[in-house]
Amino acid sequence: MICIIMGSESDLKIAEKAINVLKEFNVKYEVRVASAHRTPELIEEIVKNPEIEVFIAIAGLAAHLPGVIASLTLKPVIAVPVDVKLCGLDALLSSVQMPPGVPVATVGVDRGENAAILALQILALKDKELYNKLLEYRNKMKEKVYNSDEKIKKMFK
Amino acid sequence: MICIIMGSESDLKIAEKAINVLKEFNVKYEVRVASAHRTPELIEEIVKNPEIEVFIAIAGLAAHLPGVIASLTLKPVIAVPVDVKLCGLDALLSSVQMPPGVPVATVGVDRGENAAILALQILALKDKELYNKLLEYRNKMKEKVYNSDEKIKKMFK
Amino acid sequence: MICIIMGSESDLKIAEKAINVLKEFNVKYEVRVASAHRTPELIEEIVKNPEIEVFIAIAGLAAHLPGVIASLTLKPVIAVPVDVKLCGLDALLSSVQMPPGVPVATVGVDRGENAAILALQILALKDKELYNKLLEYRNKMKEKVYNSDEKIKKMFK
Amino acid sequence: MICIIMGSESDLKIAEKAINVLKEFNVKYEVRVASAHRTPELIEEIVKNPEIEVFIAIAGLAAHLPGVIASLTLKPVIAVPVDVKLCGLDALLSSVQMPPGVPVATVGVDRGENAAILALQILALKDKELYNKLLEYRNKMKEKVYNSDEKIKKMFK
Amino acid sequence: MICIIMGSESDLKIAEKAINVLKEFNVKYEVRVASAHRTPELIEEIVKNPEIEVFIAIAGLAAHLPGVIASLTLKPVIAVPVDVKLCGLDALLSSVQMPPGVPVATVGVDRGENAAILALQILALKDKELYNKLLEYRNKMKEKVYNSDEKIKKMFK
Amino acid sequence: MICIIMGSESDLKIAEKAINVLKEFNVKYEVRVASAHRTPELIEEIVKNPEIEVFIAIAGLAAHLPGVIASLTLKPVIAVPVDVKLCGLDALLSSVQMPPGVPVATVGVDRGENAAILALQILALKDKELYNKLLEYRNKMKEKVYNSDEKIKKMFK
Amino acid sequence: MICIIMGSESDLKIAEKAINVLKEFNVKYEVRVASAHRTPELIEEIVKNPEIEVFIAIAGLAAHLPGVIASLTLKPVIAVPVDVKLCGLDALLSSVQMPPGVPVATVGVDRGENAAILALQILALKDKELYNKLLEYRNKMKEKVYNSDEKIKKMFK
Amino acid sequence: MICIIMGSESDLKIAEKAINVLKEFNVKYEVRVASAHRTPELIEEIVKNPEIEVFIAIAGLAAHLPGVIASLTLKPVIAVPVDVKLCGLDALLSSVQMPPGVPVATVGVDRGENAAILALQILALKDKELYNKLLEYRNKMKEKVYNSDEKIKKMFK
Repeated sequence: MICIIMGSESDLKIAEKAINVLKEFNVKYEVRVASAHRTPELIEEIVKNPEIEVFIAIAGLAAHLPGVIASLTLKPVIAVPVDVKLCGLDALLSSVQMPPGVPVATVGVDRGENAAILALQILALKDKELYNKLLEYRNKMKEKVYNSDEKIKKMFK
Repeated sequence: MICIIMGSESDLKIAEKAINVLKEFNVKYEVRVASAHRTPELIEEIVKNPEIEVFIAIAGLAAHLPGVIASLTLKPVIAVPVDVKLCGLDALLSSVQMPPGVPVATVGVDRGENAAILALQILALKDKELYNKLLEYRNKMKEKVYNSDEKIKKMFK
Repeated sequence: MICIIMGSESDLKIAEKAINVLKEFNVKYEVRVASAHRTPELIEEIVKNPEIEVFIAIAGLAAHLPGVIASLTLKPVIAVPVDVKLCGLDALLSSVQMPPGVPVATVGVDRGENAAILALQILALKDKELYNKLLEYRNKMKEKVYNSDEKIKKMFK
Repeated sequence: MICIIMGSESDLKIAEKAINVLKEFNVKYEVRVASAHRTPELIEEIVKNPEIEVFIAIAGLAAHLPGVIASLTLKPVIAVPVDVKLCGLDALLSSVQMPPGVPVATVGVDRGENAAILALQILALKDKELYNKLLEYRNKMKEKVYNSDEKIKKMFK
Repeated sequence: MICIIMGSESDLKIAEKAINVLKEFNVKYEVRVASAHRTPELIEEIVKNPEIEVFIAIAGLAAHLPGVIASLTLKPVIAVPVDVKLCGLDALLSSVQMPPGVPVATVGVDRGENAAILALQILALKDKELYNKLLEYRNKMKEKVYNSDEKIKKMFK
Repeated sequence: MICIIMGSESDLKIAEKAINVLKEFNVKYEVRVASAHRTPELIEEIVKNPEIEVFIAIAGLAAHLPGVIASLTLKPVIAVPVDVKLCGLDALLSSVQMPPGVPVATVGVDRGENAAILALQILALKDKELYNKLLEYRNKMKEKVYNSDEKIKKMFK
Repeated sequence: MICIIMGSESDLKIAEKAINVLKEFNVKYEVRVASAHRTPELIEEIVKNPEIEVFIAIAGLAAHLPGVIASLTLKPVIAVPVDVKLCGLDALLSSVQMPPGVPVATVGVDRGENAAILALQILALKDKELYNKLLEYRNKMKEKVYNSDEKIKKMFK
Repeated sequence: MICIIMGSESDLKIAEKAINVLKEFNVKYEVRVASAHRTPELIEEIVKNPEIEVFIAIAGLAAHLPGVIASLTLKPVIAVPVDVKLCGLDALLSSVQMPPGVPVATVGVDRGENAAILALQILALKDKELYNKLLEYRNKMKEKVYNSDEKIKKMFK
């Protein structure tokens, strides 16, 4: 199971990018709200669930959420820095610059969908079916680019 | 009592800037090492000490230490961002950009001495003697500038 | 008493974030407008009031206001950098990077509410009742996160 | 198997941080040099090896290596941005800001050891023994912090 | 022939700035969509066309497109970084900071028109007629500035 | 006479901030449009006018206009960096970071009014009447702050 | 007279770049040390000297010195931001981003010599002899470049 | 002929990276020193030489040199931003952010060799022999990476 945790309800828009991908892949997930600074004990509680295999932590500003989760688990933690202030540079650096020993797998600013795909790639290491779905997904992405290419090529002929 | 916590022993050089000030003021303090990501439970233990009145948290990189302390106490938490990478910009933003409700009082990059003085200013609100010592300290600083001024003025006459 | 000083009327929106918190806590405060560069003598006058225990200085651009106040008092000075240009990076660096000896306690860009809570945490060191109110406030914040969590958890079940 | 690819021999110092961790864990790995821009076909060849489960891509400047690998595989790709110029900001942004659909799991600038640990955490999802070793590793890290704490606590008593 | 490649259809607005210039100069060009990460093989295919003399690669975020093209050809590759996030700083650094041996000629953020003019200047090295058209174009630009000057000069007399 | 030169008509809004100040002070000025890159010879022509005492150069992006003017005259050149892209950081650095020997007096991003006041302060060194007008202007500014202070003080009583 | 004020003795190396230029031009100057935050009253005293025509303020970190001087005088104030931390970006933004009404003429990071030349250009507006010396100085600079050009041209022939 | 112009002799180290490449390719070039701000007329003189086909402009700080050259010629101008201050970010932005109509082909900070290769790629459009040499050069680069790969692969077996 994939656990999506956002630092506050205001991150829902970015979380939905991840949720939509997970829905499409029909993978089990839960969505939670928990603040590293306001409800540290709620994070401890969420993290205990042994069913969870990958965490997706979505947070802005001084985004400590992914790091705090990573300090409480040995499961991979993926961070999505959210652009609230300073173009999201604060959240990016707070997520990615983790000290030695406690890594956080950071994806791009506001890139909820990429966190979901990365989580799926991790799970696909032991799930051939999921791997094949990812292959399909990527092929569809390719197709879309090829279609764009056809369309634009003609448009400017 | 003032509690100085550094994220790792490698921050000692910056911590000593704070320690030297506190020694000079003869104020009670303790110095601890605790990592927000490697020993969250040690932080919880340290924070419980009811004697502590102000925390000084010294950390580099994705400096979550001050924020994690602030999430566990209502005492003022002062952050000293340490320059390990990126000129300390990562530590500065990770310390200062806290979400609504859980403030961290951030001072300049590597500015351990200023964290100590800020802590003393806070304690001086209810300690007239300490206030007078701070006044003296500031007067000595002034004097030093005046002496510099005299010296330089003559040097270029 | 807490003294909120903004660099210009245009910072009112950020100041109100602080004022609303102080109102809710029923703590004595005054709100002033004074420019470090246009009315240095007004700042000197405001700073003299012995009743003031903590200053909250709110300013954008080359935000010298908090530093200038800090140079005239030994009371703690909290800075709120305001985002006017450059995502507020100019105001953040102008506030936080104070030289040795004259600290400013900086909170996040546009984070008026956090300046107020930090001021209250400082005053609560000698005011048990205020401390209890802060505890309550934090508990309410927690509750809000728990409620968000319940709501979102169900939404995506 | 974990495959470590560096963009050039000059990244060896950072790669060794990862290699040392993998050695310590006695996990199978290979180390390669391949340039996204000078030997794209070598990358294609390396990526084809079905034994590889996780990639660690180490590169500085406009670090395209992790993204190019990610475009050729569905296995998780971990990026280590290397500080060559601009404090490593160029490599960080080139690694983390991937477009929708092709995620790269980025760790901190020059943080080779964290890439290795993240790779191990991913493999540990299906390897209980490895998981237990990671637990031990983390406990040792904790112990080290506790030892530091004891030492420093005494030093300043 | 000039080949304009954008990383995705969403870059069309910036591409059109280039297209409009090329139309005005009546130079042969094609417009393509191809993603460095989603369709690397499409890029290889496009690049093979021996008719192409200059490439214009338009991409945002971790803009690998220009670098990937440059790794597959010895024709000059011009990059237009697109502002999608972080004011386009990510795309700028991902485009310009190429490693030794594989240069990319980067123009300003969102500056599609300048990429086109640079391409024309390159082609004009062996096309006297095109050179003269560029001279005319520049003279028209000059004239426009002179007209602006006349207008503004009078406006404020 | 003060000469205001903008790099393009699109900078007019920022130029008008300067013009309005100069109008108010009834000082002689002219307003020109000249591009460092499109009409270098026009700049040479403008600069030759011996009546001009101070230049105000207003430009965005890679703002070479102030530097180019400074290379052609020994009169003081004031630069106003304009925010077109990257929050104006490109224009700020292009204006202020001049090499040894050819200074440009740079004011804040989009701060046309400050360029005008700085020019007046320079002229006032030999014009007592202008000096007195500046004193008055500054007093009016002070008064405005005092009025704001009165208003806000009451509002939150 | 030109007054050079540095924020602390540690800025002497940058100040000497300015002093050397002023010595060469045989212009009257004084050199002072005064801290905006530690000795505001010393600044007030220095500023009162009616002989001073231009101020050069040299300071690092949150460089308030130039702004504080500018708030106390109507003479032109030139700022030299000093690189102490963050590549001098903090001092640059603290110097240049002044609010409307109180301009500071900022030159490049650590560019003491340019501050001196700018001051001389300002004074030369009413001092023909000084103007001629500046012309000579610039011609010598030119000559130096021409000599470099001759030397390098030959070296690579 | 390729004309390498540096802004000052201190840029020679970066220029030599370009010169070494051009020597290796046995292409005709000249090396000049000319300052955009100190010797604009020397630039005009250099630019007039009709033999020059491509310019390489090497400059740090507010690097106006490439832009000024580009304003005087229709030949392609390649910029190498030099890291003097601020990690070279000032020179990079001053070079690349050119206004519409006057492009500069910017390569990475301190990347003299890439400027030379880009210049050769441009000349190779009409010089088959040069094209073949570039192919060889690239193949040698490839080989070097392959050799590195062999060496490192074995080292960690």
